[in-house]
Amino acid sequence: MNQNFSLDPSASVLLPVAKKEKIDTVWDRHKAMQPQCGFGQLGICCRVCWKGPCRIDPFGDGPKRGICGANADVIVARNVVRMMAAGAAAHSEHGRHVALALLGVAEGRLADYQIRDEAKLRRIAGRLGIEEAGRGSHEVARDVALLTLADFQNQDHHDPCTWIKASLTEKRLDKLAGLEVLPHNIDAVVTGIMARTNVGCDADPVNLVLGGVKGALADFNGMALATELSDVLFGTPRPVITAANLGVLKEDAVNIALHGHNPLLSDLVCEIAHTMEDEARRAGASAGINLVGVCCTGNEVLVRHGIPLAANYLSQELALLTGAVDAMVVDVQCIMPSIAELGSCFHTEIVTTMDDCKITGTRHVSFKEETGAENARQIVTLAIEAFKRRNPQRVLIPDFKETSIVGFGAEAILEALALLDAEDPLKPLLDNVVNGNIRGIALFAGCNSTNAKQDSSFVTMAKKLAAENVLLLATGCGAGAFAKHGLMNQEATLAWAGETLKGVLTAIGEAAGLGGPLPLVLHMGSCVDNSRAVQVAVALADKIGVDLDALPLVASAPEAMSEKAVAIGTWSIALGLPTHLGIMPQVTGSKVVTDLVTETAKELLGGYFLVEPDPEAAAEKLLAVIDERRRALGI
Amino acid sequence: MNQNFSLDPSASVLLPVAKKEKIDTVWDRHKAMQPQCGFGQLGICCRVCWKGPCRIDPFGDGPKRGICGANADVIVARNVVRMMAAGAAAHSEHGRHVALALLGVAEGRLADYQIRDEAKLRRIAGRLGIEEAGRGSHEVARDVALLTLADFQNQDHHDPCTWIKASLTEKRLDKLAGLEVLPHNIDAVVTGIMARTNVGCDADPVNLVLGGVKGALADFNGMALATELSDVLFGTPRPVITAANLGVLKEDAVNIALHGHNPLLSDLVCEIAHTMEDEARRAGASAGINLVGVCCTGNEVLVRHGIPLAANYLSQELALLTGAVDAMVVDVQCIMPSIAELGSCFHTEIVTTMDDCKITGTRHVSFKEETGAENARQIVTLAIEAFKRRNPQRVLIPDFKETSIVGFGAEAILEALALLDAEDPLKPLLDNVVNGNIRGIALFAGCNSTNAKQDSSFVTMAKKLAAENVLLLATGCGAGAFAKHGLMNQEATLAWAGETLKGVLTAIGEAAGLGGPLPLVLHMGSCVDNSRAVQVAVALADKIGVDLDALPLVASAPEAMSEKAVAIGTWSIALGLPTHLGIMPQVTGSKVVTDLVTETAKELLGGYFLVEPDPEAAAEKLLAVIDERRRALGI
Repeated sequence: MNQNFSLDPSASVLLPVAKKEKIDTVWDRHKAMQPQCGFGQLGICCRVCWKGPCRIDPFGDGPKRGICGANADVIVARNVVRMMAAGAAAHSEHGRHVALALLGVAEGRLADYQIRDEAKLRRIAGRLGIEEAGRGSHEVARDVALLTLADFQNQDHHDPCTWIKASLTEKRLDKLAGLEVLPHNIDAVVTGIMARTNVGCDADPVNLVLGGVKGALADFNGMALATELSDVLFGTPRPVITAANLGVLKEDAVNIALHGHNPLLSDLVCEIAHTMEDEARRAGASAGINLVGVCCTGNEVLVRHGIPLAANYLSQELALLTGAVDAMVVDVQCIMPSIAELGSCFHTEIVTTMDDCKITGTRHVSFKEETGAENARQIVTLAIEAFKRRNPQRVLIPDFKETSIVGFGAEAILEALALLDAEDPLKPLLDNVVNGNIRGIALFAGCNSTNAKQDSSFVTMAKKLAAENVLLLATGCGAGAFAKHGLMNQEATLAWAGETLKGVLTAIGEAAGLGGPLPLVLHMGSCVDNSRAVQVAVALADKIGVDLDALPLVASAPEAMSEKAVAIGTWSIALGLPTHLGIMPQVTGSKVVTDLVTETAKELLGGYFLVEPDPEAAAEKLLAVIDERRRALGI
Repeated sequence: MNQNFSLDPSASVLLPVAKKEKIDTVWDRHKAMQPQCGFGQLGICCRVCWKGPCRIDPFGDGPKRGICGANADVIVARNVVRMMAAGAAAHSEHGRHVALALLGVAEGRLADYQIRDEAKLRRIAGRLGIEEAGRGSHEVARDVALLTLADFQNQDHHDPCTWIKASLTEKRLDKLAGLEVLPHNIDAVVTGIMARTNVGCDADPVNLVLGGVKGALADFNGMALATELSDVLFGTPRPVITAANLGVLKEDAVNIALHGHNPLLSDLVCEIAHTMEDEARRAGASAGINLVGVCCTGNEVLVRHGIPLAANYLSQELALLTGAVDAMVVDVQCIMPSIAELGSCFHTEIVTTMDDCKITGTRHVSFKEETGAENARQIVTLAIEAFKRRNPQRVLIPDFKETSIVGFGAEAILEALALLDAEDPLKPLLDNVVNGNIRGIALFAGCNSTNAKQDSSFVTMAKKLAAENVLLLATGCGAGAFAKHGLMNQEATLAWAGETLKGVLTAIGEAAGLGGPLPLVLHMGSCVDNSRAVQVAVALADKIGVDLDALPLVASAPEAMSEKAVAIGTWSIALGLPTHLGIMPQVTGSKVVTDLVTETAKELLGGYFLVEPDPEAAAEKLLAVIDERRRALGI
């Protein structure tokens, strides 16, 4: 079954369990849902008022306009920009949560948290224009938090958000300002999109999409601040050797899966779990407590603490099918509601923790930053209790785990490069791009989707691009895919990298004391951490005095699925990146919108969407784009 | 044709024109759209990620869960709470716009606006806890504007919005606080809803709906501040005699239709048009300039300036079919995109004015408050130019217009009552409620929808309830329906009011110097003005020391359609009002959600939805509710 649906070898082991136990998985539900509604797939179903639903006939003599008179272009545009707004909302709520926590720490209200990377805090202060020299870290943190929160408060739409201003090239900011798409306030921009897509408002698809682009840039702003302030509170990722795939679960340990996106609770669980090893052993778990990650909460604790990654999005149910997960602790986003049923089929305690993200039929521990450590303790206790109920007869842990060297944030990459040239760390990277040893750079991001064979396109494209000496970065479920499939270790570099790329990765890896090359794909973090890649790109662009859309840099989301991915993909094109989608975006019911984001965007923004479901062909197209950009740069 | 689709007599005159000219109207498009998608109608179509669209099989053996595992309850809840968020966003953008304009006036930046009702400004300052005695009006206005904007900025979710705190009974605030549904920041609540309804987040339908209720209360907050600050800038409505329906258009005048919702531009057009009468006459319009209103911009200028109302939502196209509208000036919301095509079939200049609300194929005048008067002049000039192109042969103005006495805001009602008891203006109202002369109060609100015969339920229900001595209030397109159908004049009171109600209305009307009764239905303003009715209700409740859910007060939206109506209806039940819907809300695919909003809400909130498409039966049910509340009060 998994041969069609997933490249993940764990699937072949565990899907038969699901079949035997008559438990539906995401792939069963996908199959049952066929055929899916073609109107929705084309984006031409409108449900923004109760006169509808309205559907445009994409062919034939059926309706060309909804009841109000909105045509396919307007309907498609409204639908997709609402997705951008939702994506921006999701990332930014996460960012606000972290910013408020930083404020709480700065004001001495949150005993369970501290500033873990003061140097980064001070660098951020510098970027944001906050005086930091000679001031206490809490004082600086307070100013950083308040200025960050102002990005959710500013009411002057002529004055763009602070974080975006501090995060892009001057040229890019000018271009975006010229198009009037620079966000001034994340929340206000989200609200504005919801308002303008309300019945009888904006009915100009180009205007709507530009409004959506502003929302997507608000998403970027929210992501950037979420990532950077998380580093301040939880530490900035540094390379760490760990492992990925379900083989990281242990039969003789209390297995706690950390799932979702937000590090505020999961980081404390990591801390508290260490202190409760004895309790776990007393309960019969000879190996104590084994924390593993799922999705992007998984990536957060992976890149910061080396916690092994059990699963990315589509594998979250497989983790439960092992019968070995004692508690799955979830915070927000990408948590399949189905895990409630799966948990109840086993002994697994599913614990929801955020008050605005509950799942019917699961246990809820209401997490508050004020009581974070206590909440973490409650959760670990629940897991230990659940372990006692575990039925060893039902435990089946697939014997797959791959060594993964992860934790390559912008700082880690620059530090590694500094080992080659301490004076000018960007120089070795730039030189190798210029001389063609590195032909280009590709950032893999985005989700898993049942509309593609899980992980497969990631792996196929990465191998092909690496062979062509493209430097590979990854975040989110894309990074999870690479880690699970063994592309984040040194062996992968030796096996798959083209000769010149291998040379560069080896030089850096050796200098870094790894006794070999850097991994084939550099894990930059969770999906909210895509801003880390932008940071590296901006540094490069600034160094050679060009804008982002001149760099031989591309992005790819072969299995984009969530509204967050829609927002990320859109800001990616707005920042000038040719951005590959491996699935068909739900906009093709409008030629205007489709042309706008795949063609006109190239002139307006430099970036554009490039849709290609076939991974081999997609890699070819990205190589062609990289070469085109190299030619334009004269390199 | 109109007999089935509309009660509006203008429709019978003008739909044949559409037919002859082969122009589609909203009713044609409604017909062409049949059958509409049943999944959407039940709320069980999910499009929050690109794994979907997913559809739940409401019967049979088809899917009971979406691909992620979300069941019908989760999908229905997510869909409907996003509508609430969109409604809150729409009203609140309008409110923010007005608040920012007030700030601009206070700071001397907007020469074209002024404080028209300083007394109201000072009363508002008092309500919000701002010192005003002895301070200049601009200084007070600045503080009011800034405190209002804080309702879009506050990041402490324990601290509710200022406006809602100043607008409800203590008991209601306590109840809502207990349910954790009091909003703390309009934008943040909208963003929060979008985030929690993102894929893999909140999967508890009750939690979701409570989140939606918070959004709906954010909507109330936004509406309240929009209405009150608009009164400060443009004047508080006072009773004024005017007329409604398309007969208000004039063959010998430049007809300018003001359409949308926001008074910021339309009020200036009213002012500037007076100064341009000569230009219109020189262009051949012997009667000069004739301003008329459509939808809620229409209601705004109707209740403040007595500008006649040409059309409510479903009649907006009919206005253009007269061939007599020279310019239709639109701002935001409920503007059918079809008017672009209709305008181009005639000589009519369709002018969009807000940068986030354009329509492909129309003219755009980019309205800015800084240049408001100049923008208004541009627009009137465009209308005069268009008048010159008007083809008199194609003009067909239906000879229907009904006298309407409108402008009954909370202040106007209290002032009228004060004529009976200057010491204690509420006493006459309360006494008449207690003694049964007024059996109850019903607020009619909400839209037109093609899912009902236009205006018909409003009229049928109003006549029946009035005959049973129920005092009738109306806003929005409901008010437009009553005005067009002659229920907002004294003759209607004489014809339709029950004896005791007639006595009360006559006593007040005579005291007010009207030489007869008040109109049968009191026009409180546009749909954003529903907070005016709440203000009267709160005054009554406070006077007798009960909460809002004890009053014999009901609400009805027989043709609810827009997301704004979904938000309004939801805050209506959250404030304790039994709230009638004449169309089937798109939630019935979930028994959990349906029961929650029609049954459980009664215990949680006091208010609840009551769905009844038949207007006679609906009126009976509302009477029964009123009587039940009277019995509970022991009156």
